[in-house]
Amino acid sequence: MTRNFPTAVTIVGMGSMGRALAEAFVDAGHPTTVWNRTPAKAEPLVAKGAVHASTIEAAVAASPLIITCLTTFDDTSTALEPAAVTLSGRALVTVNSGSPAGARAMAAWATDRGARFLAGAVKNVPTAVGGRDTLLYYSGDKTVFDEYEATLRVLGGDTVHLGVEPDLAAVYEMAVGALLLPALVGFFQGAAAVQARGLEAGSMVRFAEKWLDMIKSLLPTYAEEIDTGDYTDAASSVNLFLAGAAHDADLTTETNVDTGWLAPLHDLLKRAAAAGHGDHSISALTEVLREPAPRT
Amino acid sequence: MTRNFPTAVTIVGMGSMGRALAEAFVDAGHPTTVWNRTPAKAEPLVAKGAVHASTIEAAVAASPLIITCLTTFDDTSTALEPAAVTLSGRALVTVNSGSPAGARAMAAWATDRGARFLAGAVKNVPTAVGGRDTLLYYSGDKTVFDEYEATLRVLGGDTVHLGVEPDLAAVYEMAVGALLLPALVGFFQGAAAVQARGLEAGSMVRFAEKWLDMIKSLLPTYAEEIDTGDYTDAASSVNLFLAGAAHDADLTTETNVDTGWLAPLHDLLKRAAAAGHGDHSISALTEVLREPAPRT
Repeated sequence: MTRNFPTAVTIVGMGSMGRALAEAFVDAGHPTTVWNRTPAKAEPLVAKGAVHASTIEAAVAASPLIITCLTTFDDTSTALEPAAVTLSGRALVTVNSGSPAGARAMAAWATDRGARFLAGAVKNVPTAVGGRDTLLYYSGDKTVFDEYEATLRVLGGDTVHLGVEPDLAAVYEMAVGALLLPALVGFFQGAAAVQARGLEAGSMVRFAEKWLDMIKSLLPTYAEEIDTGDYTDAASSVNLFLAGAAHDADLTTETNVDTGWLAPLHDLLKRAAAAGHGDHSISALTEVLREPAPRT
Repeated sequence: MTRNFPTAVTIVGMGSMGRALAEAFVDAGHPTTVWNRTPAKAEPLVAKGAVHASTIEAAVAASPLIITCLTTFDDTSTALEPAAVTLSGRALVTVNSGSPAGARAMAAWATDRGARFLAGAVKNVPTAVGGRDTLLYYSGDKTVFDEYEATLRVLGGDTVHLGVEPDLAAVYEMAVGALLLPALVGFFQGAAAVQARGLEAGSMVRFAEKWLDMIKSLLPTYAEEIDTGDYTDAASSVNLFLAGAAHDADLTTETNVDTGWLAPLHDLLKRAAAAGHGDHSISALTEVLREPAPRT
Protein backbone atom coordinates (compact mmCIF):
# COMPACT_ATOMS: atom_id res chain seq x y z
CA MET A 1 0.00 0.00 0.00
CA THR A 2 1.23 3.45 -0.83
CA ARG A 3 0.22 6.54 0.98
CA ASN A 4 -0.03 9.95 -0.71
CA PHE A 5 1.80 12.50 1.35
CA PRO A 6 0.89 16.14 0.68
CA THR A 7 3.34 17.78 -1.70
CA ALA A 8 6.02 19.91 -0.07
CA VAL A 9 5.69 23.54 -1.13
CA THR A 10 8.00 26.53 -0.88
CA ILE A 11 6.60 30.05 -0.80
CA VAL A 12 8.97 32.90 -1.61
CA GLY A 13 7.83 36.35 -0.51
CA MET A 14 5.99 37.04 2.73
CA GLY A 15 3.90 40.06 1.80
CA SER A 16 0.24 39.84 2.80
CA MET A 17 -0.59 37.63 -0.20
CA GLY A 18 2.47 35.37 0.22
CA ARG A 19 1.62 34.86 3.88
CA ALA A 20 -1.96 33.97 2.93
CA LEU A 21 -0.73 31.39 0.39
CA ALA A 22 1.67 29.83 2.90
CA GLU A 23 -0.99 29.72 5.58
CA ALA A 24 -3.39 27.90 3.26
CA PHE A 25 -0.75 25.21 2.62
CA VAL A 26 0.10 24.88 6.31
CA ASP A 27 -3.59 24.56 7.15
CA ALA A 28 -4.01 21.89 4.47
CA GLY A 29 -1.17 19.85 5.93
CA HIS A 30 1.46 20.49 3.27
CA PRO A 31 5.08 20.66 4.44
CA THR A 32 5.60 24.38 3.85
CA THR A 33 8.90 26.20 3.55
CA VAL A 34 8.91 29.97 3.43
CA TRP A 35 11.55 32.53 2.58
CA ASN A 36 11.62 36.28 2.78
CA ARG A 37 14.43 38.79 2.40
CA THR A 38 13.41 40.17 5.79
CA PRO A 39 13.06 36.98 7.89
CA ALA A 40 10.94 38.68 10.56
CA LYS A 41 8.03 38.79 8.12
CA ALA A 42 7.99 34.97 8.07
CA GLU A 43 7.62 34.66 11.83
CA PRO A 44 3.80 34.43 11.92
CA LEU A 45 4.01 31.50 9.49
CA VAL A 46 6.74 29.77 11.45
CA ALA A 47 4.50 30.06 14.51
CA LYS A 48 1.80 28.22 12.54
CA GLY A 49 4.11 25.41 11.49
CA ALA A 50 5.98 26.54 8.38
CA VAL A 51 9.75 26.22 8.16
CA HIS A 52 11.76 29.33 7.43
CA ALA A 53 14.75 28.59 5.20
CA SER A 54 17.80 30.67 6.02
CA THR A 55 18.87 30.96 2.37
CA ILE A 56 16.97 31.05 -0.92
CA GLU A 57 18.95 27.96 -2.03
CA ALA A 58 17.69 26.03 0.99
CA ALA A 59 14.16 27.28 0.36
CA VAL A 60 14.22 26.07 -3.25
CA ALA A 61 15.87 22.77 -2.31
CA ALA A 62 13.11 22.00 0.20
CA SER A 63 10.27 21.40 -2.30
CA PRO A 64 9.54 20.23 -5.84
CA LEU A 65 7.05 23.13 -6.17
CA ILE A 66 8.20 26.71 -5.64
CA ILE A 67 5.62 29.48 -5.59
CA THR A 68 6.89 33.05 -5.64
CA CYS A 69 4.78 35.99 -4.55
CA LEU A 70 7.03 39.02 -4.98
CA THR A 71 6.11 42.41 -6.41
CA THR A 72 7.51 42.12 -9.94
CA PHE A 73 9.06 39.56 -12.29
CA ASP A 74 12.40 41.38 -11.92
CA ASP A 75 12.20 41.03 -8.14
CA THR A 76 11.48 37.35 -8.67
CA SER A 77 14.43 36.52 -10.94
CA THR A 78 16.74 38.61 -8.74
CA ALA A 79 15.64 36.76 -5.60
CA LEU A 80 15.90 33.32 -7.25
CA GLU A 81 19.21 33.85 -9.08
CA PRO A 82 21.40 32.51 -6.22
CA ALA A 83 19.30 29.30 -6.32
CA ALA A 84 19.43 28.93 -10.11
CA VAL A 85 21.23 25.58 -10.12
CA THR A 86 18.88 24.17 -7.48
CA LEU A 87 15.83 25.28 -9.47
CA SER A 88 16.66 22.90 -12.31
CA GLY A 89 14.03 20.20 -12.66
CA ARG A 90 11.64 21.85 -10.22
CA ALA A 91 8.31 23.53 -10.90
CA LEU A 92 8.30 27.31 -10.52
CA VAL A 93 4.99 29.15 -10.22
CA THR A 94 4.90 32.94 -10.04
CA VAL A 95 1.91 34.86 -8.71
CA ASN A 96 2.61 38.53 -9.15
CA SER A 97 1.31 41.30 -11.34
CA GLY A 98 3.37 42.20 -14.36
CA SER A 99 3.22 42.72 -18.07
CA PRO A 100 2.90 39.94 -20.67
CA ALA A 101 6.43 40.87 -21.79
CA GLY A 102 7.63 40.44 -18.21
CA ALA A 103 5.96 37.02 -18.04
CA ARG A 104 7.61 35.94 -21.30
CA ALA A 105 11.02 37.09 -20.02
CA MET A 106 10.43 35.26 -16.74
CA ALA A 107 9.47 32.09 -18.60
CA ALA A 108 12.67 32.31 -20.67
CA TRP A 109 14.72 32.89 -17.50
CA ALA A 110 13.14 29.87 -15.79
CA THR A 111 13.48 27.60 -18.83
CA ASP A 112 17.13 28.60 -19.24
CA ARG A 113 17.69 27.34 -15.70
CA GLY A 114 15.91 24.08 -16.34
CA ALA A 115 12.80 24.93 -14.34
CA ARG A 116 9.28 24.12 -15.51
CA PHE A 117 7.26 27.32 -15.39
CA LEU A 118 3.73 28.55 -14.74
CA ALA A 119 2.79 32.22 -14.38
CA GLY A 120 -0.35 32.76 -12.35
CA ALA A 121 -2.47 35.30 -10.55
CA VAL A 122 -4.68 35.28 -7.47
CA LYS A 123 -7.86 37.08 -8.50
CA ASN A 124 -8.89 38.03 -5.02
CA VAL A 125 -7.78 39.51 -1.72
CA PRO A 126 -5.47 37.65 0.70
CA THR A 127 -8.31 36.86 3.10
CA ALA A 128 -10.11 34.99 0.31
CA VAL A 129 -7.19 32.61 -0.33
CA GLY A 130 -8.34 29.03 0.18
CA GLY A 131 -11.98 29.88 -0.47
CA ARG A 132 -14.16 27.55 -2.48
CA ASP A 133 -14.97 30.21 -5.10
CA THR A 134 -11.62 31.99 -5.07
CA LEU A 135 -10.22 32.27 -8.58
CA LEU A 136 -6.59 31.72 -9.51
CA TYR A 137 -5.50 31.33 -13.08
CA TYR A 138 -2.25 30.11 -14.56
CA SER A 139 -0.63 29.92 -17.95
CA GLY A 140 2.44 28.09 -19.17
CA ASP A 141 3.65 24.50 -18.83
CA LYS A 142 0.53 22.33 -18.75
CA THR A 143 2.44 19.38 -17.24
CA VAL A 144 3.15 21.47 -14.14
CA PHE A 145 -0.52 22.36 -13.84
CA ASP A 146 -1.65 18.76 -14.31
CA GLU A 147 0.87 17.42 -11.82
CA TYR A 148 0.15 20.00 -9.11
CA GLU A 149 -3.46 20.94 -9.80
CA ALA A 150 -4.75 19.40 -6.56
CA THR A 151 -2.04 21.23 -4.62
CA LEU A 152 -2.73 24.55 -6.34
CA ARG A 153 -6.42 24.08 -5.63
CA VAL A 154 -5.61 24.48 -1.91
CA LEU A 155 -5.30 28.20 -2.71
CA GLY A 156 -8.77 28.49 -4.23
CA GLY A 157 -11.47 26.21 -5.53
CA ASP A 158 -11.69 27.98 -8.88
CA THR A 159 -8.29 27.11 -10.32
CA VAL A 160 -7.88 27.44 -14.08
CA HIS A 161 -5.17 26.76 -16.70
CA LEU A 162 -5.61 29.39 -19.41
CA GLY A 163 -3.22 27.95 -21.99
CA VAL A 164 0.39 27.04 -22.61
CA GLU A 165 1.62 30.51 -23.55
CA PRO A 166 3.29 31.76 -20.35
CA ASP A 167 2.07 35.35 -20.76
CA LEU A 168 -1.66 34.54 -21.05
CA ALA A 169 -2.30 35.01 -17.34
CA ALA A 170 -0.67 38.45 -17.57
CA VAL A 171 -2.84 39.29 -20.58
CA TYR A 172 -6.03 38.43 -18.65
CA GLU A 173 -4.61 40.10 -15.57
CA MET A 174 -4.30 43.37 -17.47
CA ALA A 175 -7.62 42.90 -19.23
CA VAL A 176 -9.71 42.00 -16.19
CA GLY A 177 -7.80 44.21 -13.77
CA ALA A 178 -8.45 47.32 -15.84
CA LEU A 179 -11.77 48.02 -14.20
CA LEU A 180 -10.59 47.98 -10.59
CA LEU A 181 -9.16 51.46 -10.10
CA PRO A 182 -11.78 53.26 -12.23
CA ALA A 183 -14.61 51.49 -10.39
CA LEU A 184 -13.08 52.27 -7.00
CA VAL A 185 -12.54 55.93 -7.84
CA GLY A 186 -16.18 56.07 -8.96
CA PHE A 187 -17.16 54.71 -5.54
CA PHE A 188 -14.84 57.11 -3.70
CA GLN A 189 -16.27 60.03 -5.67
CA GLY A 190 -19.75 58.91 -4.68
CA ALA A 191 -18.65 58.59 -1.05
CA ALA A 192 -17.29 62.14 -1.09
CA ALA A 193 -20.55 63.32 -2.65
CA VAL A 194 -22.85 61.78 -0.03
CA GLN A 195 -20.55 62.98 2.74
CA ALA A 196 -20.73 66.51 1.31
CA ARG A 197 -24.45 66.17 1.92
CA GLY A 198 -23.87 65.20 5.55
CA LEU A 199 -24.57 61.50 4.94
CA GLU A 200 -22.28 58.58 5.72
CA ALA A 201 -20.41 56.82 2.95
CA GLY A 202 -21.66 53.62 4.55
CA SER A 203 -25.22 54.57 3.61
CA MET A 204 -24.47 54.02 -0.08
CA VAL A 205 -22.68 50.66 0.26
CA ARG A 206 -25.74 48.50 -0.14
CA PHE A 207 -26.84 50.50 -3.18
CA ALA A 208 -23.37 50.36 -4.74
CA GLU A 209 -23.28 46.59 -4.17
CA LYS A 210 -26.54 46.20 -6.09
CA TRP A 211 -25.20 48.47 -8.79
CA LEU A 212 -22.14 46.23 -9.19
CA ASP A 213 -24.48 43.24 -9.48
CA MET A 214 -26.34 45.09 -12.21
CA ILE A 215 -23.09 45.87 -14.03
CA LYS A 216 -22.13 42.21 -13.71
CA SER A 217 -25.40 41.19 -15.33
CA LEU A 218 -24.58 43.32 -18.39
CA LEU A 219 -21.15 41.84 -19.18
CA PRO A 220 -22.21 38.74 -21.16
CA THR A 221 -24.33 40.87 -23.51
CA TYR A 222 -21.58 43.45 -23.98
CA ALA A 223 -18.97 40.74 -24.64
CA GLU A 224 -21.24 39.23 -27.28
CA GLU A 225 -21.73 42.62 -28.94
CA ILE A 226 -17.96 43.15 -28.94
CA ASP A 227 -17.25 39.65 -30.30
CA THR A 228 -19.85 39.89 -33.06
CA GLY A 229 -19.19 43.58 -33.76
CA ASP A 230 -22.96 44.11 -33.78
CA TYR A 231 -23.76 47.10 -31.59
CA THR A 232 -27.20 47.86 -33.03
CA ASP A 233 -29.38 46.36 -30.29
CA ALA A 234 -28.64 49.15 -27.85
CA ALA A 235 -30.31 48.79 -24.45
CA SER A 236 -28.09 51.67 -23.30
CA SER A 237 -26.75 53.79 -26.14
CA VAL A 238 -23.69 55.99 -26.38
CA ASN A 239 -26.06 58.98 -26.68
CA LEU A 240 -27.81 57.97 -23.44
CA PHE A 241 -24.46 58.01 -21.64
CA LEU A 242 -23.60 61.34 -23.29
CA ALA A 243 -26.84 62.78 -21.86
CA GLY A 244 -25.89 61.38 -18.46
CA ALA A 245 -22.40 62.84 -18.69
CA ALA A 246 -23.94 66.30 -18.50
CA HIS A 247 -24.87 65.50 -14.89
CA ASP A 248 -21.25 65.07 -13.81
CA ALA A 249 -20.84 68.84 -13.77
CA ASP A 250 -23.95 69.01 -11.55
CA LEU A 251 -22.18 66.78 -9.06
CA THR A 252 -19.30 69.23 -8.80
CA THR A 253 -21.78 72.11 -8.45
CA GLU A 254 -23.69 70.32 -5.68
CA THR A 255 -20.87 68.80 -3.71
CA ASN A 256 -17.61 70.46 -4.84
CA VAL A 257 -16.21 66.99 -5.57
CA ASP A 258 -13.54 66.88 -8.29
CA THR A 259 -15.00 65.07 -11.31
CA GLY A 260 -12.21 66.12 -13.67
CA TRP A 261 -11.00 62.52 -14.01
CA LEU A 262 -14.20 61.77 -15.96
CA ALA A 263 -13.35 64.21 -18.78
CA PRO A 264 -11.48 61.63 -20.94
CA LEU A 265 -14.47 59.30 -20.60
CA HIS A 266 -16.70 62.04 -21.95
CA ASP A 267 -14.21 62.48 -24.80
CA LEU A 268 -14.48 58.77 -25.58
CA LEU A 269 -18.27 59.11 -25.71
CA LYS A 270 -17.99 62.08 -28.07
CA ARG A 271 -15.47 60.27 -30.28
CA ALA A 272 -17.80 57.27 -30.43
CA ALA A 273 -20.76 59.48 -31.36
CA ALA A 274 -18.66 61.27 -34.00
CA ALA A 275 -17.73 57.86 -35.44
CA GLY A 276 -21.43 57.07 -35.93
CA HIS A 277 -21.95 55.03 -32.75
CA GLY A 278 -24.37 57.48 -31.07
CA ASP A 279 -27.36 55.13 -31.30
CA HIS A 280 -25.23 52.05 -30.79
CA SER A 281 -24.72 50.14 -27.57
CA ILE A 282 -22.29 51.69 -25.10
CA SER A 283 -20.07 48.65 -25.77
CA ALA A 284 -19.20 50.29 -29.13
CA LEU A 285 -16.71 52.36 -27.08
CA THR A 286 -14.50 49.30 -27.54
CA GLU A 287 -14.06 50.28 -31.19
CA VAL A 288 -12.85 53.74 -30.17
CA LEU A 289 -10.45 52.30 -27.58
CA ARG A 290 -8.88 50.21 -30.34
CA GLU A 291 -7.95 53.34 -32.27
CA PRO A 292 -4.87 55.33 -31.37
CA ALA A 293 -5.86 58.35 -29.28
CA PRO A 294 -5.84 61.66 -31.12
CA ARG A 295 -2.78 63.78 -30.33
CA THR A 296 -3.61 66.57 -27.92
CA MET B 1 -66.94 42.89 3.49
CA THR B 2 -64.71 45.18 1.53
CA ARG B 3 -62.46 44.09 -1.27
CA ASN B 4 -59.14 45.79 -2.04
CA PHE B 5 -58.93 46.57 -5.70
CA PRO B 6 -55.45 47.16 -7.08
CA THR B 7 -54.60 50.86 -7.30
CA ALA B 8 -55.00 52.42 -10.74
CA VAL B 9 -51.67 53.66 -12.04
CA THR B 10 -50.71 55.97 -14.89
CA ILE B 11 -47.31 55.69 -16.53
CA VAL B 12 -46.10 58.66 -18.57
CA GLY B 13 -43.27 57.95 -20.99
CA MET B 14 -42.99 54.75 -23.02
CA GLY B 15 -39.23 54.41 -23.41
CA SER B 16 -37.84 50.97 -22.62
CA MET B 17 -37.96 51.62 -18.86
CA GLY B 18 -41.44 53.18 -18.95
CA ARG B 19 -42.76 50.20 -20.89
CA ALA B 20 -41.19 47.83 -18.36
CA LEU B 21 -42.86 49.69 -15.47
CA ALA B 22 -46.24 49.66 -17.20
CA GLU B 23 -45.92 45.98 -18.04
CA ALA B 24 -45.19 45.12 -14.41
CA PHE B 25 -48.38 46.88 -13.31
CA VAL B 26 -50.46 45.25 -16.04
CA ASP B 27 -49.07 41.84 -15.07
CA ALA B 28 -49.88 42.52 -11.41
CA GLY B 29 -53.49 43.32 -12.27
CA HIS B 30 -53.38 47.08 -11.74
CA PRO B 31 -55.60 49.17 -14.03
CA THR B 32 -52.83 50.80 -16.03
CA THR B 33 -53.09 53.92 -18.14
CA VAL B 34 -50.17 54.89 -20.34
CA TRP B 35 -49.30 58.02 -22.26
CA ASN B 36 -46.54 58.84 -24.68
CA ARG B 37 -45.98 61.82 -26.97
CA THR B 38 -45.63 59.32 -29.83
CA PRO B 39 -48.68 57.05 -29.25
CA ALA B 40 -47.24 54.20 -31.37
CA LYS B 41 -44.73 53.48 -28.63
CA ALA B 42 -47.59 52.61 -26.28
CA GLU B 43 -49.05 49.98 -28.61
CA PRO B 44 -47.24 46.95 -27.12
CA LEU B 45 -48.66 47.89 -23.72
CA VAL B 46 -52.16 48.37 -25.07
CA ALA B 47 -51.90 44.89 -26.58
CA LYS B 48 -51.13 43.60 -23.07
CA GLY B 49 -54.11 45.32 -21.51
CA ALA B 50 -53.06 48.87 -20.69
CA VAL B 51 -55.22 51.81 -21.72
CA HIS B 52 -53.63 54.53 -23.81
CA ALA B 53 -54.96 57.97 -22.91
CA SER B 54 -55.26 60.28 -25.88
CA THR B 55 -54.26 63.35 -23.86
CA ILE B 56 -51.97 63.91 -20.89
CA GLU B 57 -54.98 65.36 -18.99
CA ALA B 58 -56.90 62.13 -19.49
CA ALA B 59 -53.85 60.11 -18.48
CA VAL B 60 -53.45 62.03 -15.23
CA ALA B 61 -57.19 61.95 -14.52
CA ALA B 62 -57.26 58.16 -14.81
CA SER B 63 -55.28 57.35 -11.64
CA PRO B 64 -54.45 58.65 -8.16
CA LEU B 65 -50.81 57.64 -8.74
CA ILE B 66 -48.89 59.04 -11.71
CA ILE B 67 -45.42 57.69 -12.44
CA THR B 68 -43.37 59.53 -15.04
CA CYS B 69 -40.44 57.97 -16.80
CA LEU B 70 -39.13 60.66 -19.14
CA THR B 71 -35.53 61.62 -19.84
CA THR B 72 -35.18 64.75 -17.70
CA PHE B 73 -37.08 66.73 -15.07
CA ASP B 74 -37.59 69.49 -17.66
CA ASP B 75 -39.17 66.99 -20.05
CA THR B 76 -41.39 65.88 -17.18
CA SER B 77 -42.74 69.29 -16.18
CA THR B 78 -43.19 70.22 -19.84
CA ALA B 79 -45.18 67.04 -20.54
CA LEU B 80 -47.32 67.43 -17.40
CA GLU B 81 -48.00 71.19 -17.65
CA PRO B 82 -51.25 70.79 -19.68
CA ALA B 83 -52.54 68.52 -16.90
CA ALA B 84 -51.46 70.80 -14.04
CA VAL B 85 -54.97 71.38 -12.68
CA THR B 86 -55.80 67.69 -12.82
CA LEU B 87 -52.59 66.83 -10.93
CA SER B 88 -53.79 68.60 -7.81
CA GLY B 89 -54.33 66.18 -4.94
CA ARG B 90 -52.70 63.26 -6.80
CA ALA B 91 -49.41 61.52 -6.11
CA LEU B 92 -46.67 62.19 -8.65
CA VAL B 93 -43.63 59.92 -8.74
CA THR B 94 -40.76 60.63 -11.13
CA VAL B 95 -38.22 58.02 -12.11
CA ASN B 96 -35.61 59.66 -14.27
CA SER B 97 -32.00 60.65 -13.93
CA GLY B 98 -31.30 64.26 -13.07
CA SER B 99 -29.44 66.50 -10.72
CA PRO B 100 -30.41 67.15 -7.11
CA ALA B 101 -31.15 70.75 -8.17
CA GLY B 102 -33.44 69.40 -10.88
CA ALA B 103 -35.23 67.22 -8.33
CA ARG B 104 -35.72 70.20 -5.99
CA ALA B 105 -37.13 72.29 -8.85
CA MET B 106 -39.43 69.44 -9.85
CA ALA B 107 -40.64 69.08 -6.26
CA ALA B 108 -41.41 72.81 -6.12
CA TRP B 109 -43.22 72.61 -9.46
CA ALA B 110 -45.34 69.67 -8.25
CA THR B 111 -46.10 71.22 -4.87
CA ASP B 112 -47.12 74.50 -6.54
CA ARG B 113 -49.70 72.50 -8.49
CA GLY B 114 -51.01 70.75 -5.39
CA ALA B 115 -49.46 67.36 -6.18
CA ARG B 116 -47.76 65.19 -3.56
CA PHE B 117 -44.31 64.34 -4.82
CA LEU B 118 -41.75 61.54 -4.71
CA ALA B 119 -38.58 61.47 -6.83
CA GLY B 120 -37.27 57.97 -7.44
CA ALA B 121 -34.89 55.87 -9.46
CA VAL B 122 -34.88 52.33 -10.80
CA LYS B 123 -31.44 50.95 -9.97
CA ASN B 124 -31.45 48.28 -12.63
CA VAL B 125 -32.15 47.49 -16.26
CA PRO B 126 -35.69 47.37 -17.70
CA THR B 127 -35.69 43.55 -17.86
CA ALA B 128 -35.11 43.44 -14.09
CA VAL B 129 -38.24 45.48 -13.30
CA GLY B 130 -40.55 43.45 -11.07
CA GLY B 131 -37.73 41.27 -9.75
CA ARG B 132 -37.62 40.26 -6.12
CA ASP B 133 -34.18 41.87 -5.58
CA THR B 134 -34.61 44.81 -7.92
CA LEU B 135 -33.81 48.06 -6.13
CA LEU B 136 -35.81 51.26 -6.49
CA TYR B 137 -35.35 54.16 -4.15
CA TYR B 138 -37.45 57.23 -3.58
CA SER B 139 -37.20 60.47 -1.67
CA GLY B 140 -39.75 63.13 -0.82
CA ASP B 141 -43.27 62.99 0.63
CA LYS B 142 -43.30 60.05 3.03
CA THR B 143 -47.11 59.91 3.05
CA VAL B 144 -47.05 59.06 -0.66
CA PHE B 145 -44.54 56.29 -0.06
CA ASP B 146 -46.50 54.87 2.86
CA GLU B 147 -49.80 54.98 0.98
CA TYR B 148 -48.47 53.40 -2.21
CA GLU B 149 -45.57 51.29 -0.96
CA ALA B 150 -47.27 48.00 -1.84
CA THR B 151 -48.03 49.31 -5.33
CA LEU B 152 -44.51 50.62 -5.86
CA ARG B 153 -43.17 47.25 -4.71
CA VAL B 154 -44.70 45.72 -7.86
CA LEU B 155 -41.71 47.32 -9.66
CA GLY B 156 -39.08 45.67 -7.47
CA GLY B 157 -38.90 43.85 -4.16
CA ASP B 158 -36.18 46.12 -2.81
CA THR B 159 -38.12 49.37 -2.52
CA VAL B 160 -36.68 52.02 -0.20
CA HIS B 161 -37.65 55.50 1.04
CA LEU B 162 -34.41 57.44 1.53
CA GLY B 163 -35.81 60.47 3.32
CA VAL B 164 -38.18 63.38 2.98
CA GLU B 165 -35.84 65.70 1.08
CA PRO B 166 -36.98 65.34 -2.53
CA ASP B 167 -33.43 65.50 -3.96
CA LEU B 168 -31.98 62.65 -1.88
CA ALA B 169 -32.66 60.03 -4.54
CA ALA B 170 -30.82 62.21 -7.07
CA VAL B 171 -27.90 62.58 -4.65
CA TYR B 172 -27.59 58.79 -4.29
CA GLU B 173 -28.21 58.40 -8.01
CA MET B 174 -25.16 60.54 -8.75
CA ALA B 175 -23.11 58.97 -5.99
CA VAL B 176 -23.83 55.34 -6.81
CA GLY B 177 -24.06 55.85 -10.56
CA ALA B 178 -20.57 57.34 -10.73
CA LEU B 179 -18.89 53.97 -11.08
CA LEU B 180 -20.90 52.67 -14.04
CA LEU B 181 -19.18 54.28 -17.02
CA PRO B 182 -15.63 53.99 -15.62
CA ALA B 183 -16.18 50.31 -14.79
CA LEU B 184 -17.65 49.62 -18.22
CA VAL B 185 -14.83 51.38 -20.05
CA GLY B 186 -12.40 49.32 -17.98
CA PHE B 187 -14.18 46.19 -19.20
CA PHE B 188 -14.26 47.41 -22.81
CA GLN B 189 -10.54 48.19 -22.66
CA GLY B 190 -9.92 44.67 -21.39
CA ALA B 191 -12.10 43.24 -24.15
CA ALA B 192 -10.11 45.14 -26.79
CA ALA B 193 -6.89 43.87 -25.18
CA VAL B 194 -7.83 40.18 -25.24
CA GLN B 195 -9.17 40.54 -28.78
CA ALA B 196 -5.85 42.10 -29.83
CA ARG B 197 -4.36 38.81 -28.65
CA GLY B 198 -6.77 36.84 -30.85
CA LEU B 199 -8.99 35.79 -27.94
CA GLU B 200 -12.72 36.38 -27.57
CA ALA B 201 -14.02 39.09 -25.26
CA GLY B 202 -16.39 36.40 -23.98
CA SER B 203 -13.44 34.48 -22.56
CA MET B 204 -12.89 37.14 -19.91
CA VAL B 205 -16.52 37.53 -18.79
CA ARG B 206 -16.42 34.91 -16.07
CA PHE B 207 -13.17 36.39 -14.72
CA ALA B 208 -14.53 39.95 -14.82
CA GLU B 209 -17.66 38.79 -12.99
CA LYS B 210 -15.54 37.37 -10.18
CA TRP B 211 -13.48 40.54 -10.16
CA LEU B 212 -16.67 42.60 -9.66
CA ASP B 213 -17.60 40.30 -6.77
CA MET B 214 -14.17 40.94 -5.29
CA ILE B 215 -14.62 44.71 -5.68
CA LYS B 216 -18.05 44.41 -4.05
CA SER B 217 -16.49 42.64 -1.06
CA LEU B 218 -14.15 45.61 -0.51
CA LEU B 219 -16.80 48.36 -0.33
CA PRO B 220 -17.87 48.03 3.33
CA THR B 221 -14.25 48.32 4.48
CA TYR B 222 -13.55 51.30 2.23
CA ALA B 223 -16.75 53.05 3.35
CA GLU B 224 -15.72 52.56 6.98
CA GLU B 225 -12.26 53.98 6.29
CA ILE B 226 -13.84 56.98 4.57
CA ASP B 227 -16.39 57.53 7.36
CA THR B 228 -13.80 57.27 10.14
CA GLY B 229 -11.07 59.06 8.17
CA ASP B 230 -8.66 56.32 9.28
CA TYR B 231 -6.78 55.07 6.21
CA THR B 232 -3.84 53.52 8.06
CA ASP B 233 -4.87 49.83 7.85
CA ALA B 234 -4.04 49.57 4.15
CA ALA B 235 -4.69 46.17 2.60
CA SER B 236 -4.10 47.84 -0.78
CA SER B 237 -2.14 51.06 -0.54
CA VAL B 238 -1.97 54.06 -2.85
CA ASN B 239 1.66 53.12 -3.56
CA LEU B 240 0.62 49.60 -4.58
CA PHE B 241 -1.79 51.09 -7.12
CA LEU B 242 0.91 53.51 -8.28
CA ALA B 243 3.18 50.52 -8.96
CA GLY B 244 0.33 48.87 -10.86
CA ALA B 245 -0.31 52.02 -12.89
CA ALA B 246 3.07 51.53 -14.52
CA HIS B 247 1.60 48.46 -16.23
CA ASP B 248 -1.02 50.48 -18.09
CA ALA B 249 1.61 51.65 -20.54
CA ASP B 250 2.56 47.98 -21.05
CA LEU B 251 -1.00 47.30 -22.12
CA THR B 252 -0.76 49.91 -24.85
CA THR B 253 2.60 48.47 -25.90
CA GLU B 254 1.24 44.94 -26.08
CA THR B 255 -2.16 45.56 -27.60
CA ASN B 256 -2.19 49.10 -29.02
CA VAL B 257 -5.30 49.79 -26.94
CA ASP B 258 -5.78 53.44 -25.95
CA THR B 259 -5.27 53.72 -22.18
CA GLY B 260 -5.07 57.53 -22.19
CA TRP B 261 -8.32 57.82 -20.24
CA LEU B 262 -6.49 56.39 -17.21
CA ALA B 263 -4.02 59.29 -17.01
CA PRO B 264 -6.14 61.42 -14.63
CA LEU B 265 -6.48 58.39 -12.34
CA HIS B 266 -2.70 58.14 -12.22
CA ASP B 267 -2.62 61.86 -11.40
CA LEU B 268 -5.03 61.25 -8.51
CA LEU B 269 -2.71 58.52 -7.20
CA LYS B 270 0.28 60.87 -7.45
CA ARG B 271 -1.61 63.69 -5.74
CA ALA B 272 -2.60 61.29 -2.95
CA ALA B 273 1.00 60.10 -2.53
CA ALA B 274 2.23 63.71 -2.54
CA ALA B 275 -0.30 64.52 0.19
CA GLY B 276 1.22 61.80 2.39
CA HIS B 277 -1.25 59.01 1.58
CA GLY B 278 1.27 56.71 -0.18
CA ASP B 279 1.14 54.03 2.50
CA HIS B 280 -2.52 54.63 3.23
CA SER B 281 -5.45 52.63 1.89
CA ILE B 282 -6.47 53.35 -1.69
CA SER B 283 -9.71 54.74 -0.20
CA ALA B 284 -7.67 57.81 0.84
CA LEU B 285 -8.18 58.97 -2.76
CA THR B 286 -11.51 60.21 -1.42
CA GLU B 287 -9.63 62.98 0.40
CA VAL B 288 -8.01 64.08 -2.85
CA LEU B 289 -11.34 64.03 -4.71
CA ARG B 290 -12.73 66.40 -2.09
CA GLU B 291 -10.11 69.01 -2.96
CA PRO B 292 -10.56 71.28 -5.95
CA ALA B 293 -8.51 69.98 -8.88
CA PRO B 294 -5.31 71.87 -9.59
CA ARG B 295 -5.59 74.23 -12.56
CA THR B 296 -3.95 72.78 -15.63
